[in-house]
This record gives sequence, C-alpha cells and structure tokens, in this order.
Amino acid sequence: MVNKVYGIGVGPGDYKLLTLKAVEILKKVDTIFVPISKEGKESYAYNIIKPILDENSKNIVKLLFPMSKNKEYLKKYWDEGFNKVINCDGDVAIITIGDPTLYSTFSYLWKKLKENNIDVKIINGIPSPMACAGLLNMPLVEGDENIAILPQGRDLEKIIDKFDTIVVMKTKKLGDILRNIPNLDDNYIIGIVSKGFCSDEYIQYGKLSEINFDEVNEYLSLAIIKRVRE
Amino acid sequence: MVNKVYGIGVGPGDYKLLTLKAVEILKKVDTIFVPISKEGKESYAYNIIKPILDENSKNIVKLLFPMSKNKEYLKKYWDEGFNKVINCDGDVAIITIGDPTLYSTFSYLWKKLKENNIDVKIINGIPSPMACAGLLNMPLVEGDENIAILPQGRDLEKIIDKFDTIVVMKTKKLGDILRNIPNLDDNYIIGIVSKGFCSDEYIQYGKLSEINFDEVNEYLSLAIIKRVRE
Repeated sequence: MVNKVYGIGVGPGDYKLLTLKAVEILKKVDTIFVPISKEGKESYAYNIIKPILDENSKNIVKLLFPMSKNKEYLKKYWDEGFNKVINCDGDVAIITIGDPTLYSTFSYLWKKLKENNIDVKIINGIPSPMACAGLLNMPLVEGDENIAILPQGRDLEKIIDKFDTIVVMKTKKLGDILRNIPNLDDNYIIGIVSKGFCSDEYIQYGKLSEINFDEVNEYLSLAIIKRVRE
Repeated sequence: MVNKVYGIGVGPGDYKLLTLKAVEILKKVDTIFVPISKEGKESYAYNIIKPILDENSKNIVKLLFPMSKNKEYLKKYWDEGFNKVINCDGDVAIITIGDPTLYSTFSYLWKKLKENNIDVKIINGIPSPMACAGLLNMPLVEGDENIAILPQGRDLEKIIDKFDTIVVMKTKKLGDILRNIPNLDDNYIIGIVSKGFCSDEYIQYGKLSEINFDEVNEYLSLAIIKRVRE
C-alpha cells in the first residue's frame, strides 16, 4: 500500500517555474501520476516536468479526469484514480498544473485521500493568476487593496464595486458581462492572457474598448480587471 | 545605468520553495537588492536566499522600506531605493517575500521603474495564501467556488456570504470581527497560520469557537475562512 502522497503543483507551463522542492521530490518518488483529460491525449502537466526527469527512470501512470461538471459521472474516475494511487508501493507524486490549492484537479483525490487517513503533503507551484500578472507586468494588489478570484466571472457585476482587482479564471462570455457594467471603460484596466507560457501565447492589456474578446481562448484564458487609482 | 531589473519572489520562507528560474537569475545578476524594514535589522527575504548564494560572491545592497502607511513619508525611501537601483550597472534583482504581484514591497519601485521605461521582468514566487493552505492541508478553492483576499479583514462582514473562501492577510482584530458574524461557528472552518515556515510556526484549524485568537501573531498571520459544503 502507498506510503506518502505528494500533491505537486508544476506551475503555469515552464519547467523553470518548478520549485527546488518539487524537483527534489519528483526525482525521488517511486511513481508519478499525471492527469489527462482524454484517453490518448497528452498530459500538459507531464510535458512541463519532462525536462527534469531522466529518460525511462520513472514509473509514470496516467490518471484520466474527463472535462465534465457532472459530479456523479466524474466520481467513477476519481474512485479509479484513488484506487490506483493507494495500491502503489512507496512514495508517490500526483502532479497538477499551477498550484494544488487553487482550482486543481487534485482537489478531489486530495479529499478522498485525507478521508482515508493517507499521508498527503502539498508542494506548492506558481498559481496562474500571479503568473499572468507577471506576464502582464502589472501587480495584482498592493497596500490595502483587496482582490477576488472568480471562476468564469460568475456574479462579477454584483461584486465589482467592492474590489480593487478581480481575476476571472476562464473568460467565456466575459466581454458580454463587462460591456453591461456601467463606466467600466473609464475606471478599469484589463489584462488578458490566453494560452500563457505556450508558443501561441496571446496577451492583451488596455481599456475595455481596446480588448478584442473574439481572440480570447475561453478555456486557457485568464483576465485581470483592475480599478485605476489616482 | 541599470540594464534589466528582475523583481523576484522568494516565497514564504524555505529556500527550497524558490523556483529554478529564481535561482538561475539570482546567481547571474550583478547586484541583489534586499529589503529591510529598519536600519540594522536583518532582511527576512535575504535570509531565505542565502543558502543558494556563494559566500562573498555577490554585491548585496539593502533597501530600507520602513513599516508605515504614510505614503508621503515612505515616498522618500522609495525615491532613494529607485535611485540606488537605476544607478547600478548591468542586471539587478530586487527580492521580495512571497510573490511580487501580491502585496509586495516591490510594488512601489516596480511602478516607478515602469514609469521611467526601465526594463522590468517579474519572476514569480510561491504566494503566502497558497503556502499556508498547503501547510493546513486544505484546498483554497475547487470547482466553481470563488475566493476573496482581504488585507486585515476590512469589510469581511459585508462580503462573507458572497464567497466560498476568504483569506485574511493580517489577522489583527479578526477574532472580534468573526464573533460578530451570525452562524459562523456552524458553517465555516478556519485555518490560521502564524509565522509560517519559521521555527516557531503555529497552526490552528477548526471552528470559530475552537480558535485561540490570543495566540495569533497579528503581523505574520494569515487566516483562511472556508464555508463548509455538503
């Protein structure tokens, strides 16, 4: 049976954004579990860590987590993943894009491992909101500012006046939502990163009226909406 | 005059949480600027990176940023820091605890460097909310949950019912604020990390009534308040 499970964040896409600790543990564990969203598809998280692994030196096992919001349907895959993990010998790592504590596919396994008293240790990675702010060369928050992070921009119009910065994790329909908020063009700067850290990375920065929402990839896009202070 | 300025996040306290990229750049720049809050005081950020630097191999320069909310008073120190940085030759790094995009002392210099068209590149570090969630062995958010990060807990009572998770960055008065919010004890779990990653790290996790707020160090404490779902 498994000894220790490391939930490792591999950051937004460049292996150089792995921490020293993540590299150390990835090199020493007996098995590395890598998430895929479809049978036969490559694992984005695995592609990130490949440069630091010795060829053929590791037991790499895929975990299939389909893209779906249906928890009943997904439960079967989480249970399968859980069984694969606990039946390993020694120490194992489960890798996840970004950071394990922020919207990671690892959350579901994590919960089940804890419920079953398995020893889990989190190794943080660079989260996407901070990585995108870095690419955009803009701070998320400073001083006494506050910030909200919303998946898909749900309820954005209800809270925008209460926050200095809002991060929207997937930007589908974001253009429509923002165009319905009064005075946004004058008071906010928007930064959008699509496919950040990929070869076809696409970065936009400006007022609402300057952003081209047609060019925004909805799944791998992240928006930072920041109130202009003076 | 300075060539390139790297704003480098050194993470929450363990040098092993530095990224490979941060280490690479810290080893190659000509000068490293380290923040201190008081003349004669040690730099916490510098202590983090010391293990990866060769003894005496670097030009280490202190930047004094006193703890104050008075922007007029601080402006003198920011201007001094700015002048020190731009008058360096070659590439320089300015280090900051956690991540440069999230409440960092680097923000003020960053703004001024950009205004003066200096080439700034951000190297992300592990931010404290994610690091503390990792220590607490709890996710910040998963699935369609949303999250707010508040300095000092300002307006917490106004937004708590709109968020699944709230992070409070400094926990002074947090106990008083939370005890005035109805039904909090039944519906929320609270994790508090004081002096995380230090030798006297102190971690609490439980319902409101189980937390001892007297034991919480106000400056170096971070709280995660999470709605219990079922």
